[in-house]
Amino acid sequence: MKFLILNGPNLNLLGQREPGVYGTDSYDALCQLAQKHAQENNAQADCFQSNYEGALIDAIHGAGGVYDAIIFNPGALTHYSYALHDALTSVQVPCVEVHISNVHKREEFRRRSVTAPACVGQICGLGFQGYLLAMDYFLRA
Amino acid sequence: MKFLILNGPNLNLLGQREPGVYGTDSYDALCQLAQKHAQENNAQADCFQSNYEGALIDAIHGAGGVYDAIIFNPGALTHYSYALHDALTSVQVPCVEVHISNVHKREEFRRRSVTAPACVGQICGLGFQGYLLAMDYFLRA
Amino acid sequence: MKFLILNGPNLNLLGQREPGVYGTDSYDALCQLAQKHAQENNAQADCFQSNYEGALIDAIHGAGGVYDAIIFNPGALTHYSYALHDALTSVQVPCVEVHISNVHKREEFRRRSVTAPACVGQICGLGFQGYLLAMDYFLRA
Amino acid sequence: MKFLILNGPNLNLLGQREPGVYGTDSYDALCQLAQKHAQENNAQADCFQSNYEGALIDAIHGAGGVYDAIIFNPGALTHYSYALHDALTSVQVPCVEVHISNVHKREEFRRRSVTAPACVGQICGLGFQGYLLAMDYFLRA
Amino acid sequence: MKFLILNGPNLNLLGQREPGVYGTDSYDALCQLAQKHAQENNAQADCFQSNYEGALIDAIHGAGGVYDAIIFNPGALTHYSYALHDALTSVQVPCVEVHISNVHKREEFRRRSVTAPACVGQICGLGFQGYLLAMDYFLRA
Amino acid sequence: MKFLILNGPNLNLLGQREPGVYGTDSYDALCQLAQKHAQENNAQADCFQSNYEGALIDAIHGAGGVYDAIIFNPGALTHYSYALHDALTSVQVPCVEVHISNVHKREEFRRRSVTAPACVGQICGLGFQGYLLAMDYFLRA
Amino acid sequence: MKFLILNGPNLNLLGQREPGVYGTDSYDALCQLAQKHAQENNAQADCFQSNYEGALIDAIHGAGGVYDAIIFNPGALTHYSYALHDALTSVQVPCVEVHISNVHKREEFRRRSVTAPACVGQICGLGFQGYLLAMDYFLRA
Amino acid sequence: MKFLILNGPNLNLLGQREPGVYGTDSYDALCQLAQKHAQENNAQADCFQSNYEGALIDAIHGAGGVYDAIIFNPGALTHYSYALHDALTSVQVPCVEVHISNVHKREEFRRRSVTAPACVGQICGLGFQGYLLAMDYFLRA
Amino acid sequence: MKFLILNGPNLNLLGQREPGVYGTDSYDALCQLAQKHAQENNAQADCFQSNYEGALIDAIHGAGGVYDAIIFNPGALTHYSYALHDALTSVQVPCVEVHISNVHKREEFRRRSVTAPACVGQICGLGFQGYLLAMDYFLRA
Amino acid sequence: MKFLILNGPNLNLLGQREPGVYGTDSYDALCQLAQKHAQENNAQADCFQSNYEGALIDAIHGAGGVYDAIIFNPGALTHYSYALHDALTSVQVPCVEVHISNVHKREEFRRRSVTAPACVGQICGLGFQGYLLAMDYFLRA
Amino acid sequence: MKFLILNGPNLNLLGQREPGVYGTDSYDALCQLAQKHAQENNAQADCFQSNYEGALIDAIHGAGGVYDAIIFNPGALTHYSYALHDALTSVQVPCVEVHISNVHKREEFRRRSVTAPACVGQICGLGFQGYLLAMDYFLRA
Amino acid sequence: MKFLILNGPNLNLLGQREPGVYGTDSYDALCQLAQKHAQENNAQADCFQSNYEGALIDAIHGAGGVYDAIIFNPGALTHYSYALHDALTSVQVPCVEVHISNVHKREEFRRRSVTAPACVGQICGLGFQGYLLAMDYFLRA
Repeated sequence: MKFLILNGPNLNLLGQREPGVYGTDSYDALCQLAQKHAQENNAQADCFQSNYEGALIDAIHGAGGVYDAIIFNPGALTHYSYALHDALTSVQVPCVEVHISNVHKREEFRRRSVTAPACVGQICGLGFQGYLLAMDYFLRA
Repeated sequence: MKFLILNGPNLNLLGQREPGVYGTDSYDALCQLAQKHAQENNAQADCFQSNYEGALIDAIHGAGGVYDAIIFNPGALTHYSYALHDALTSVQVPCVEVHISNVHKREEFRRRSVTAPACVGQICGLGFQGYLLAMDYFLRA
Repeated sequence: MKFLILNGPNLNLLGQREPGVYGTDSYDALCQLAQKHAQENNAQADCFQSNYEGALIDAIHGAGGVYDAIIFNPGALTHYSYALHDALTSVQVPCVEVHISNVHKREEFRRRSVTAPACVGQICGLGFQGYLLAMDYFLRA
Repeated sequence: MKFLILNGPNLNLLGQREPGVYGTDSYDALCQLAQKHAQENNAQADCFQSNYEGALIDAIHGAGGVYDAIIFNPGALTHYSYALHDALTSVQVPCVEVHISNVHKREEFRRRSVTAPACVGQICGLGFQGYLLAMDYFLRA
Repeated sequence: MKFLILNGPNLNLLGQREPGVYGTDSYDALCQLAQKHAQENNAQADCFQSNYEGALIDAIHGAGGVYDAIIFNPGALTHYSYALHDALTSVQVPCVEVHISNVHKREEFRRRSVTAPACVGQICGLGFQGYLLAMDYFLRA
Repeated sequence: MKFLILNGPNLNLLGQREPGVYGTDSYDALCQLAQKHAQENNAQADCFQSNYEGALIDAIHGAGGVYDAIIFNPGALTHYSYALHDALTSVQVPCVEVHISNVHKREEFRRRSVTAPACVGQICGLGFQGYLLAMDYFLRA
Repeated sequence: MKFLILNGPNLNLLGQREPGVYGTDSYDALCQLAQKHAQENNAQADCFQSNYEGALIDAIHGAGGVYDAIIFNPGALTHYSYALHDALTSVQVPCVEVHISNVHKREEFRRRSVTAPACVGQICGLGFQGYLLAMDYFLRA
Repeated sequence: MKFLILNGPNLNLLGQREPGVYGTDSYDALCQLAQKHAQENNAQADCFQSNYEGALIDAIHGAGGVYDAIIFNPGALTHYSYALHDALTSVQVPCVEVHISNVHKREEFRRRSVTAPACVGQICGLGFQGYLLAMDYFLRA
Repeated sequence: MKFLILNGPNLNLLGQREPGVYGTDSYDALCQLAQKHAQENNAQADCFQSNYEGALIDAIHGAGGVYDAIIFNPGALTHYSYALHDALTSVQVPCVEVHISNVHKREEFRRRSVTAPACVGQICGLGFQGYLLAMDYFLRA
Repeated sequence: MKFLILNGPNLNLLGQREPGVYGTDSYDALCQLAQKHAQENNAQADCFQSNYEGALIDAIHGAGGVYDAIIFNPGALTHYSYALHDALTSVQVPCVEVHISNVHKREEFRRRSVTAPACVGQICGLGFQGYLLAMDYFLRA
Repeated sequence: MKFLILNGPNLNLLGQREPGVYGTDSYDALCQLAQKHAQENNAQADCFQSNYEGALIDAIHGAGGVYDAIIFNPGALTHYSYALHDALTSVQVPCVEVHISNVHKREEFRRRSVTAPACVGQICGLGFQGYLLAMDYFLRA
Repeated sequence: MKFLILNGPNLNLLGQREPGVYGTDSYDALCQLAQKHAQENNAQADCFQSNYEGALIDAIHGAGGVYDAIIFNPGALTHYSYALHDALTSVQVPCVEVHISNVHKREEFRRRSVTAPACVGQICGLGFQGYLLAMDYFLRA
């Protein structure tokens, strides 16, 4: 099984960015964790991060026929990027949306996801584990 | 590790209730699945379901000092039971909220959870797997 | 034909409760009226009232395979109990929602029913007659 | 007893119009059904339909002193015609509002009636039966 | 000076309609009062009333080049008839909107006028006098 | 008959203030116009203006038993001073609210009056004439 | 191909009405333009205009089996006439909605069309050309 | 004088539950305080707490003819239980609503009480004293 | 203990103003009642009332270091005076907000207090007693 | 005449993406269709598509002095990209907005265009034809 | 150049009032800072503060022909005083609005300024410097 | 001191774009002005502009450890780019938001900034001076 671990704006700064909210581990640590988890399950996890909505759309388009599933943390684009929503509905690759923090506990605007309706489901608040659990979902399906 | 698998209104009818949305497996099947998963991880999972908000509040209160974590699907109470929210903030047991279906894809009212701000996080749309992944979160933490 | 005449919170106080709005006849009078009407039409009407949302959900669940139709006045739960909505969509028994008073003439919050979308239809403002007319609907169908 | 069966815009196309929602019986069939029901109850039912709000207002005004009750399906005018609301409060003839489909199950705009507060009550979702049940309400009163 | 005294839906029932709100004088009395007031000021007042929005639009269109001013009580159409708004902006005849009752003291929906932005001004709550005062405004201008 | 012509904030700058909206005549001209009109009708008009909400409340309180009617332009306080609303309901002197400009044609916030529900009625858009017409209303009543 | 060119309230005043918004050409000019365009394409265009919502509904009903397509500018009824919406869904004739001005650039209320969801599509802001382009759409389909 | 001290969901956990908000004294301490205060005033205070909305409704119903007044803290049900509102209007026993914390200082949803309109008044933010002051109100009345 | 009993706009008219809502006792009676109650508790109550928001702000500022507590009925300023809110947060004197009537039972705008978040708590609906109970709260604290 | 046919996010996937909504023809087919139509009218149509908002802004900026008109389908950016709105008002090239599907028939968020107020007009629901009709508008102007 | 440094309610308590938000320097220190800055730029800065909206309106009116610019911190009146808005549009003196704290980071109600549309611009969050920078703006203009 | 002068979408067209709103000076002129001002204050100002949200996020990330402060005009992204908000909270460099025009005087959507809560403060309406004043703020701090 082949996973695309897709991360949106500002997630490259994990570890530096509001550590009280997002923890102290870096984006590289996240990628290594995800890849190790994939390998342990005889799967492959490729990581891609961009601060450009357009690059994320391109990545989703490119996932068709290449990846079995997308694990996607759209960052703050979650809350307004209808273009990402449409990108997800344009391809046949199933996606699980992940948020590191519990979006229901923070600012009001973080409680609504415009991308989630285009996904299989959503995991939030479970830290980096959220990415691994999303992989497990597909691995066990 | 000891889990309380708590289910709210109408989840006793799993398998019968809108199978297109909730699948064809029964509530008993869910309990067995959860308990088997717990045992395989040297943990224990006790299941409780009620259609009474009051009984769910009592169960949450009773979990203090007895369970290590609550895996909670509040059913439709998710969307209005501030009393459940307060019950969760009244005890020291961490909780992950689970929804079988992707609440972001359905009626507008299902997109808001009044209980999630009192939880560690939320998993939705991943079927019965959501309960197991929530357990895994605590087992690996 | 077998009817479940289901009444929600505070309807046990009919006759005492705001008689200007709900009339002076008691809940027992309502039940007798409904049962007499059923008998005259070679049908059976069983009455159940509870102030507990959970008990009403249980009653709806229990109606499956037992009753041909539910005549349901959810009382004030009409306006917030999504759990009752889900209970009605979980079973195969058709339901008509009844309100004794004209909910459109009273407080703003009474104009919206969260349960009606899970029913065949709704009758309001026609007093106790509403229950009988709902039965007539099923009897003639 | 003398009834005015009043129907608003597009109800002349019953049977042709969205049969999945409104059924396959015609407006004439509705009138005959209503008139037959009236006769069986020693009453009289006169039918009037118009696609003009003004003609409906005129009909309501003209009902004073002529009809004992109005059975009124304002069609889509239900949702915005405050002029019909005021017409109903301008005369002494009691009115029951009827909708063939369950307005609570359809588009959001159909859930609010601006005319219902000027009526005795409302019946919706019970098909053509709704008109007959409304007559029964007055006949038994 | 030539006035068109234009009245919308239900104003033909003045005197009969909710006398507590609109008084006990009839529409004919209003016309006579207006015409007498006009004559005393060497002016002419023609009265037209219709329950049809379309007829009111036609009357406004026809006022161009014929009347010096329109005194207009659109009745309940005030609150939703953007078509009347557009009719008033389509002609060069100035208009004062009049309401017999104080619309600010009644139902919420009566507080907003969609037609007033197309008028010179508005008078409300001053009974039949409102029509005469509106004429006086033009007579003194 | 004795009138209190009461004007709120910024009306002292009439003639200087946005002449395109409020005209070029001064506050003194307004007072003289009102007083002349009163005298011609064997009445008396006293003018009071203040930029202080408190002073306007005091003036309203002081009008009880002294004036037969208040002609009140609350200026921008119209849109938020519930205290003026309560002042008007605290005394027995009837009041007509006047606005020089057509508030329905300007910013959205000017369309709602929180003081009008405490008045007999409202006149807007008719310039200084509005004050005189309001007096006429009381003189003819 | 046979077109019904349907125009709603106030469009009879084209050329006179707010020429800055709607241009200086008359309604007759519009009809001639449409008919000429139809003839050049071996089609027929019949024009009908009314200020009455009811007459427009009747025209839509009458188009069934007579016209191949409706080109409809509902005027200000666009923004509130759910009855026109229902008329369009009641017949089998496809309709394109046309607005002469760009409704997105004007008052807020003009941005929402309640009739457009019952149409194939909508053209706005392209002047009289909008009607011709709508015909072209059907001619090329 | 006989008081029913009624407490809703989660108030049984007083002292344990968010002590920063609700203080460190237990529910039993509250009851003893209330009963001592009652005795000192030659009155009687009976305490009842439940996490079930239905049980609270039953308790209110049962207060009729038994208690002179209800002192009621509905907990989080305050914000959505229209059924409790209706229960309070169904009986003749006056009620004062009490909240331990200042609901105006917390989450937005806590600022609206759907039960308060059915009470004599409300006291919030004054800790356990609120219950005693409510009793004092009735004792001095 | 030294109390400042602070009353806002229109409370000087107590007894005259809407006696059905506010009772028939005068503002002087309120002051005497408060002062008597203070003396009986070895405390002092100084009364100040103003119809000027500015004067109330000054009084709050002046209370610092002089009074132990403020008992404050801001009248209608409750609903919009963010300046009073800020005045209360600017000084160290604790304040309890009091309303004579039950604000939850009246117009919608009275249900929200912008000043209460700056107070310890709020008492409403308990008449003049509200002021005394607020003093008792501080006396017992 | 020289046209810039500009397409936003996800339109590169035409033919693959939700064919039930957008048809089965590809983006290349769209370009060829547009170019052929241009050539037949002695015009030129250059196509540019990007999933990057920034690239679309750059393209609009670059159109000044190069193209006579822009035919623009901003995709989902239509609903939130105020930056595109500002780009369009920053250049002198007129633009017609095009949507392939009828945005009024789909999710609520698709009904509002933030870019349309910066365009001459909008065409929606007419499939690929919309692009050609937009060109025709400019060609005939 | 002559500046009026105008400060609204509660700014007299600077230094004492919420020092975490507004700093520890007093209102006098602000005035001295502003006056020193003016003198260093060969200008004059007069300071006026009031807790009365009316006094602030009077000061703005009095600034006409006396001051070259107003530097205005309306305090909490920023959020509701349409009367101050109108005062600023009534005079010819340009005004820059200043807030010491970043109003966008605090309560929701502080994010909207009803006075800013009547100003040249607004500076917020830059502490006492905001006043000096506003002066610099005029000095360099 | 080292400043990053960051400008978002469409600001490259300064001078060309709506000169009535943004003036006639070019983006280059802005940069030169800023750099000259920096040099005169022994500071350095680097200018960066992009129409890509992603490039702006990258620039903010890159400012950490390189610049002492960011002066940021996000253009229309101000109103929806939560990703820019998060970028600003992800780095330790303080930022002042600048808008050339007075956003409070224009379209409603321009009044809300989603980025301002992540800044020290905001300056708007003061033209190019706003950038210089923002630098002065940091230089004097």
